[in-house]
Amino acid sequence: MTILDGKKISNDIKNEIAEEVQKMKADGEKVPHLAAVIVGNDGPSMTYVNSKVRACERIGFESTLVQLSYTTSEVELLDTIQELNENDDIDGFIVQLPLPPQINTEKILLAVDANKDVDGFHPTNFGKMALDMSTFIPATPFGILELLNRYKVETKGKHTVVIGRSHIVGRPMSILMGRKGFPGNSTVTLTHSHTKNIQEITKQADIIITALGVPEFLKADMVKEGVVIIDVGITRVPDASKTKGYYITGDVDFENVSKKASYITPVPGGVGPMTIAMLLKNTLLAREKHNRR
Amino acid sequence: MTILDGKKISNDIKNEIAEEVQKMKADGEKVPHLAAVIVGNDGPSMTYVNSKVRACERIGFESTLVQLSYTTSEVELLDTIQELNENDDIDGFIVQLPLPPQINTEKILLAVDANKDVDGFHPTNFGKMALDMSTFIPATPFGILELLNRYKVETKGKHTVVIGRSHIVGRPMSILMGRKGFPGNSTVTLTHSHTKNIQEITKQADIIITALGVPEFLKADMVKEGVVIIDVGITRVPDASKTKGYYITGDVDFENVSKKASYITPVPGGVGPMTIAMLLKNTLLAREKHNRR
Repeated sequence: MTILDGKKISNDIKNEIAEEVQKMKADGEKVPHLAAVIVGNDGPSMTYVNSKVRACERIGFESTLVQLSYTTSEVELLDTIQELNENDDIDGFIVQLPLPPQINTEKILLAVDANKDVDGFHPTNFGKMALDMSTFIPATPFGILELLNRYKVETKGKHTVVIGRSHIVGRPMSILMGRKGFPGNSTVTLTHSHTKNIQEITKQADIIITALGVPEFLKADMVKEGVVIIDVGITRVPDASKTKGYYITGDVDFENVSKKASYITPVPGGVGPMTIAMLLKNTLLAREKHNRR
Repeated sequence: MTILDGKKISNDIKNEIAEEVQKMKADGEKVPHLAAVIVGNDGPSMTYVNSKVRACERIGFESTLVQLSYTTSEVELLDTIQELNENDDIDGFIVQLPLPPQINTEKILLAVDANKDVDGFHPTNFGKMALDMSTFIPATPFGILELLNRYKVETKGKHTVVIGRSHIVGRPMSILMGRKGFPGNSTVTLTHSHTKNIQEITKQADIIITALGVPEFLKADMVKEGVVIIDVGITRVPDASKTKGYYITGDVDFENVSKKASYITPVPGGVGPMTIAMLLKNTLLAREKHNRR
């Protein structure tokens, strides 16, 4: 059994990007610039955004954090997006979700210039992805592809089962694993809340990608010997014995499933760390795209 | 066993649209206007385009056929598209594929105003579809949804197996059948040329949608009792005994599979006739969208 070590791979990727940034600087080129917009000061959202900004600084990107109050109107946010779209110094930007109820998220996502949409959430980029065109792939799915790629996990002709049909993980992964090329060329089954007898389907899977958010949902008797497990679930489980008062767990009963798996991602330290690394990668790609514009 | 009668349903839909057009005329409103662009005079492409134009005329739409020579350059075609985008009288238009080799198809699809893209091939519309936003659904998948809808075929919690991952049928159907709502909420498996042991997968299917183009590929021993069959394959098989010199068949061994099926589309007369009806439906929707712009 091999651990798919997202912590190590994400550090490798960050180091590779940092080296490219050094070269850019040495050549007198402008370095990539990522902006992040956050509306309100929700705890977890602030944590995510701050870690993105810090990651930029560490690898030598420029970064800008745009903090707007929780009562920001839709029109004000659209104005901010327009400014970021037009600001030639900024290569890519993200709008941290969720947004307050007075703002229509769909309208906001559509307003972002698709060429600066490093989250890959704009319908144009999502459609390009589904139609096999070159585009930004959303960071978490992109991170999963990169893990499979770096560990050379065979996907062609394998049966991949995706659990959960969210727009940011399940739906895009179900599309990406069935595309031509590597990683891809899998037979893909997308399961969700209406799926019946899910264990009959997971037992047939060569690769399982689960993004459900139900702690230890996937048990050893639901998988076959040699399965590849990608666990995208992250749940805080209250636990008085821990200093933080909780522990972090995924969708998989790691202790028992790992005994049957050929490859498995841990939680934490698997898919999680890959997400920020791939956001930085997308920003680097945006910089290159920008140069060609 | 119930035949999913695409010929009848498509006529119903055309009659419903014709009635709406009559109402529009009576109210002094502008009727929907569809334009079709064809480059070259390839036989089958001309046949398709002409039948689309004739269908428009029959239900009272305005239609325009733009015929360009086979040697048209990419720039000339882009100019034509720009004119159609800007022509306020035209609600929707299609560019008949395939295009000659000197023209980059991807560039052309991207040039069409997504609000006039009644084929639903523009990445923005494809992405909206995949992200559950309101948009144009490509005509053939839209036709399949409408058949399931009019015959009230249950799809929720069913296992739908799609055979073939083309951009115009397999890929979008695999997305649509897994979306929330009806028809949808299926567990969906997308199979293709790299799928191993396909008969093991098709035998588990409650619904099979096949778009392979291999005559009578799906045999009775590959399906279970009560299966719903949607056959999108259309192949001309040479046959000297026929006056035309060929007969038309689908991907399904209809004679034997129909004995096990609960619902089945015939070929011809199943999915085929639905495609033009749904293109007209999309043009009507484009007209309504246009009014709101």
